[in-house]
Amino acid sequence: MALPASARVDIERYWATLERSAEIGRGRPGGLSRLALGDADKQMRDEFVGWCREAGLKVRIDGMGNIFARRPGLDDNLPPVVMGSHLDTQVNGGRFDGIAGVLGGLEVCRALDTLGHRTRRPLEVVNWTNEEGSRFSPPMVGSGCFVGAYGLEWARERRDDDGKSIGEELARIGYLGEMEEKPHAFDAYFEFHIEQGYYLDRDGMQVGVVTGGFPSTGMLVEFRGETAHTGPWPMERRKNALIAGARLLVAVDELGWEYAGSGGKATAARLIAWPNKPGILSDWAQTVCDVRHSDPETAQVMAERMRRAVGEAAARAGCSAEILDVWNWGGAIFAPELIDQVRSASLAMGYRTQDILSQAGHDAYFVARHAPTTMIFAPCKGGITHNNEENCDRDDLEPGLNVLLQAVVARADR
Amino acid sequence: MALPASARVDIERYWATLERSAEIGRGRPGGLSRLALGDADKQMRDEFVGWCREAGLKVRIDGMGNIFARRPGLDDNLPPVVMGSHLDTQVNGGRFDGIAGVLGGLEVCRALDTLGHRTRRPLEVVNWTNEEGSRFSPPMVGSGCFVGAYGLEWARERRDDDGKSIGEELARIGYLGEMEEKPHAFDAYFEFHIEQGYYLDRDGMQVGVVTGGFPSTGMLVEFRGETAHTGPWPMERRKNALIAGARLLVAVDELGWEYAGSGGKATAARLIAWPNKPGILSDWAQTVCDVRHSDPETAQVMAERMRRAVGEAAARAGCSAEILDVWNWGGAIFAPELIDQVRSASLAMGYRTQDILSQAGHDAYFVARHAPTTMIFAPCKGGITHNNEENCDRDDLEPGLNVLLQAVVARADR
Repeated sequence: MALPASARVDIERYWATLERSAEIGRGRPGGLSRLALGDADKQMRDEFVGWCREAGLKVRIDGMGNIFARRPGLDDNLPPVVMGSHLDTQVNGGRFDGIAGVLGGLEVCRALDTLGHRTRRPLEVVNWTNEEGSRFSPPMVGSGCFVGAYGLEWARERRDDDGKSIGEELARIGYLGEMEEKPHAFDAYFEFHIEQGYYLDRDGMQVGVVTGGFPSTGMLVEFRGETAHTGPWPMERRKNALIAGARLLVAVDELGWEYAGSGGKATAARLIAWPNKPGILSDWAQTVCDVRHSDPETAQVMAERMRRAVGEAAARAGCSAEILDVWNWGGAIFAPELIDQVRSASLAMGYRTQDILSQAGHDAYFVARHAPTTMIFAPCKGGITHNNEENCDRDDLEPGLNVLLQAVVARADR
Repeated sequence: MALPASARVDIERYWATLERSAEIGRGRPGGLSRLALGDADKQMRDEFVGWCREAGLKVRIDGMGNIFARRPGLDDNLPPVVMGSHLDTQVNGGRFDGIAGVLGGLEVCRALDTLGHRTRRPLEVVNWTNEEGSRFSPPMVGSGCFVGAYGLEWARERRDDDGKSIGEELARIGYLGEMEEKPHAFDAYFEFHIEQGYYLDRDGMQVGVVTGGFPSTGMLVEFRGETAHTGPWPMERRKNALIAGARLLVAVDELGWEYAGSGGKATAARLIAWPNKPGILSDWAQTVCDVRHSDPETAQVMAERMRRAVGEAAARAGCSAEILDVWNWGGAIFAPELIDQVRSASLAMGYRTQDILSQAGHDAYFVARHAPTTMIFAPCKGGITHNNEENCDRDDLEPGLNVLLQAVVARADR
């Protein structure tokens, strides 16, 4: 029996789960500071797993602490249609971000129970570990590991600033499961997420049909110099790694301004140095920076210029430089048939609908390597995110959730 | 009875104290990491106090943990002639730096015992607390507090990056004494120190007659912005405090290059930010930077340009800025009669002698507000300092120590 076109999620029931989540790991007023694998993340995971079990879902934890909650299908041997995102936040994060998508997947399952509808294919709701990368680098390491982009041992050895590893912290909070030998097949993956940009909100759109992501390149760069006295040491002998790092950050920022007219962005997000103290020049620095542009060729030019800026920054500061890691993400990676399904579902319900590119990185980017994937965006007030002022109301989220319900069921029932 | 012109220090006895010091708070190979008021600093203080007592000196600790060790004079009511410097080091510090001066003062007292000479005025050897400013900001806070440049309560409330205060740490290591109501008068203050520059070494000079310090200005600057996502947030709305800080550091570095031809220096030594994490723009940053030039007017121009760069850096990054603190030091602050005494003593012993300006900050700068003051520089290999490769041999240090002995006694016996 087909799902009625009038089927909808229960926005109040969903909202209650968001409100409960907003109590766990409170940060600045109205925001969350729920870093991956900390005590608050454990509490949220426990709460989420409890809700899943109450909804009759079968919960499995994998070797990276990714949580899969499964709702059986009529033809239960078929690969599942998967929904999800992440429950962790930035240190000054909001209450919605990835949370809206994980709890959205749960709400779809609950809504189907209410409607008495069992899909042909099974459904799964997933919470990916450490999407934000705020505590452990790199971001999206749970989904990346699931699809084989990162090795399990390497990933578990990633450490936070206090030296604690993902593996140790997973064990400590009770979320260290076993990795599948081969990641189980997904029939499709739908990630519902707030836009984290201001276009939908500005244009009064209700649903963003995500056709892909800004082609983006990020880098982790290390500079090495020499300590010396900040006073007598002549400028021409200095090897101040802090200055090398600062010069790269400024060069990257300039790059962003140069391409701002066409919507490009370049970001210097992190600079750490040692000793980084008054009175002494630093002999070590690390920076994290990235460039993003909607046009793939322009994005590539920006990436190449960012890479060249590394050598120039190092040379100007008399230091050596090494690019320790490069990440590429984004592009036209989403599945056309799923994009169409999302667009159709949204238009069929009469929502103001807009195609859009994601500018942020998401777990969906990795999952797209594994299965047909797309995303659904909801507007967020003023586009503010990664900030305690991040805000959505019920009306912002309900249309996208209904699209998630209809698109997922259409896919799972085919 | 006058001190014979042939009187000299015992360089081997002195060297043994330096070698013992080099065992306490070892850092990178050959270097020290003896941060103010840490366990190693306590151990070194205990050792030093023990040596002083063995030499019959009377030890007194003041309210900032400054250690005064007194050798009585024939006319013991006259103000003392004081020698000293500091025993703390940078996190990647050398074995000589201020240590050479504190132990030099002790060696002068020991040499006078051996020579059976008692000066007319009393002598004192002082170890000033937290000269480096590596652990607690500002640097030279012990001498600054002694001369009344800083209030005692304020100074004791200075905290390290772990939140521990100078007052707490002084109490913990047993060096919290009582401040004199009024700092006791000094007849004169002589600070023996390695040059921390490469001029004496390059020119084959044995003794630097320090006529003053590079006029210098340092600043502690705070920037405030807003957190946001590193991806979607448009360049023109960003308020990334990390970029404001990086822009200031680069502007200050450029300033240094501009004046490098005439020996000017400009340094960006420290940049901290919050959250300073991948994925999120920082809403707070602090920087420490300074400018130095031998010419007072040029130094002032550099300082004014550094100050202007703060506003420009903030504006370019969409942030607000506040200069939390400004430090001025250096200039023609040393006493001509003491400078003459040092020069005469050095030439009388046939040492290759050169007038020189200090480029680093020293406790002597503060003490000069309280009493006639000067400094004596010894060459250090290649001018390398604030680095574990900092190095001197006996021949580098012996001439300056003999000058210290002769100049101090000439002053004290007049």
